[in-house]
Amino acid sequence: MNNTTMEIVESERIRRLIRRGEWSQATSGAAPGYVQCNLAILQSDWAAEFLRFCQLNPKPCPLIAMSESPGDYLLPTLGKDIDIRFDVPRYRIWRDGELVEECEQIDTLWSNDMVAFLLGCSFSFEEALLADGLEIRNITEACNVPMYRTNMRCAKAGRLEADMVVSMRPMKAEHAIRAIQICTRFPSVHGAPVHLGDPALIGIADINRPDYGDRVTIRADELPVFWACGVTPQVAIERARPALSITHSPGYMLISDLLNSNLAVL
Amino acid sequence: MNNTTMEIVESERIRRLIRRGEWSQATSGAAPGYVQCNLAILQSDWAAEFLRFCQLNPKPCPLIAMSESPGDYLLPTLGKDIDIRFDVPRYRIWRDGELVEECEQIDTLWSNDMVAFLLGCSFSFEEALLADGLEIRNITEACNVPMYRTNMRCAKAGRLEADMVVSMRPMKAEHAIRAIQICTRFPSVHGAPVHLGDPALIGIADINRPDYGDRVTIRADELPVFWACGVTPQVAIERARPALSITHSPGYMLISDLLNSNLAVL
Repeated sequence: MNNTTMEIVESERIRRLIRRGEWSQATSGAAPGYVQCNLAILQSDWAAEFLRFCQLNPKPCPLIAMSESPGDYLLPTLGKDIDIRFDVPRYRIWRDGELVEECEQIDTLWSNDMVAFLLGCSFSFEEALLADGLEIRNITEACNVPMYRTNMRCAKAGRLEADMVVSMRPMKAEHAIRAIQICTRFPSVHGAPVHLGDPALIGIADINRPDYGDRVTIRADELPVFWACGVTPQVAIERARPALSITHSPGYMLISDLLNSNLAVL
Repeated sequence: MNNTTMEIVESERIRRLIRRGEWSQATSGAAPGYVQCNLAILQSDWAAEFLRFCQLNPKPCPLIAMSESPGDYLLPTLGKDIDIRFDVPRYRIWRDGELVEECEQIDTLWSNDMVAFLLGCSFSFEEALLADGLEIRNITEACNVPMYRTNMRCAKAGRLEADMVVSMRPMKAEHAIRAIQICTRFPSVHGAPVHLGDPALIGIADINRPDYGDRVTIRADELPVFWACGVTPQVAIERARPALSITHSPGYMLISDLLNSNLAVL
């Protein structure tokens, strides 16, 4: 690309719409090929513990970027001019672990002790699976991916602890094997599945009653395949009840300028 | 290693014992780290078809080496001074698809139209799995791996056709996922599993009644994991009934000087 032209990449184009308040949809399918991120913003007295929680639990909490110092709302490693106070289409405000508000910008809430954490998201590996010809049921059925609380305990970091939340995509065995191969290449977006087969073995009582998201069809010749899910750190935050935290609204992600293919380790 | 000394590697040491008739055991566990191979010897009117069968079905038939020309009994790419007429501890002689004899050398049967094919074997990936801390049930239970005929049709090559035979190792889901990652690195020794979970989906009626090898324990929290098996080309040969063919006796493999770790593609 010739840098002297006015061309902008699709990720940047959509972020501009979001910043101007001209984009109010979820970001699934927007800017294909670009990495989208989960967001968690915490005050600095929680930041070290949250960073440690991510380091100890990289599968549910794959950290891709964070504020360089408290109060820094720019994320230059993720993309040009990203300002985390404006560039996510919908935010959730949590006080003492309770959801109190959804809004489209957080500049009036931002303070000099805030730290933004951006985590990898399943959209990236779903794109890689689709590109390989695999079917993803929640996409076929146009609903949210089903997510479940499990009995798989995350490593504790100070006041932050949680049982892992997993997302589930049903697949035939041969496709599950292929999905494991593909997702292994993408550790920064949850990596390989953490379980497949019998849901009861990870503490899921009824596969047809997800704790988050929607139920999807599981056929007789399919196995449920489970991935570590970015809802896990949200559960840890809800449980720990910090005075103030801010997340993206589910499905309304930060669109970065990183390419999904650049996340592949192989 | 200093080539001027008389040092020999462990693989070569055991081959010398085999050639002198001083080794009559199976080769499982012998010369750790070195690639062991399945053997099939066919007369030249079958060789092109067998080579094509291997190329079309690389998971059950991962070809590692073959005679450079008909009648050539040396395999220099596999190791120093390997003579396929003497260096396998036990051979099976087949006439018109029927097993007629087992013997310890085949020099009197060798003719100028014979072609030897050496195929990768599960010992190599089992070693990689063990090195990663995984348990392999047939090793723990000191028996042969259970093997099953399936309904997975191999691609046909001339007169050679077969349904795939698979070997099975039970594992917890998290270990099955790890095994898929590890075996993916070793395509020349059967590669990633071809199925896991419900045996009926690949035409196995009773997992506790293997068609070859021994039954192993499958625990309630485990999945059966299935790999393409080197018995498959033997089935194709038996079925096609060539006038004469020679194989290794199960478990009595050719020990090469190649290192298992050198087979890893990553």
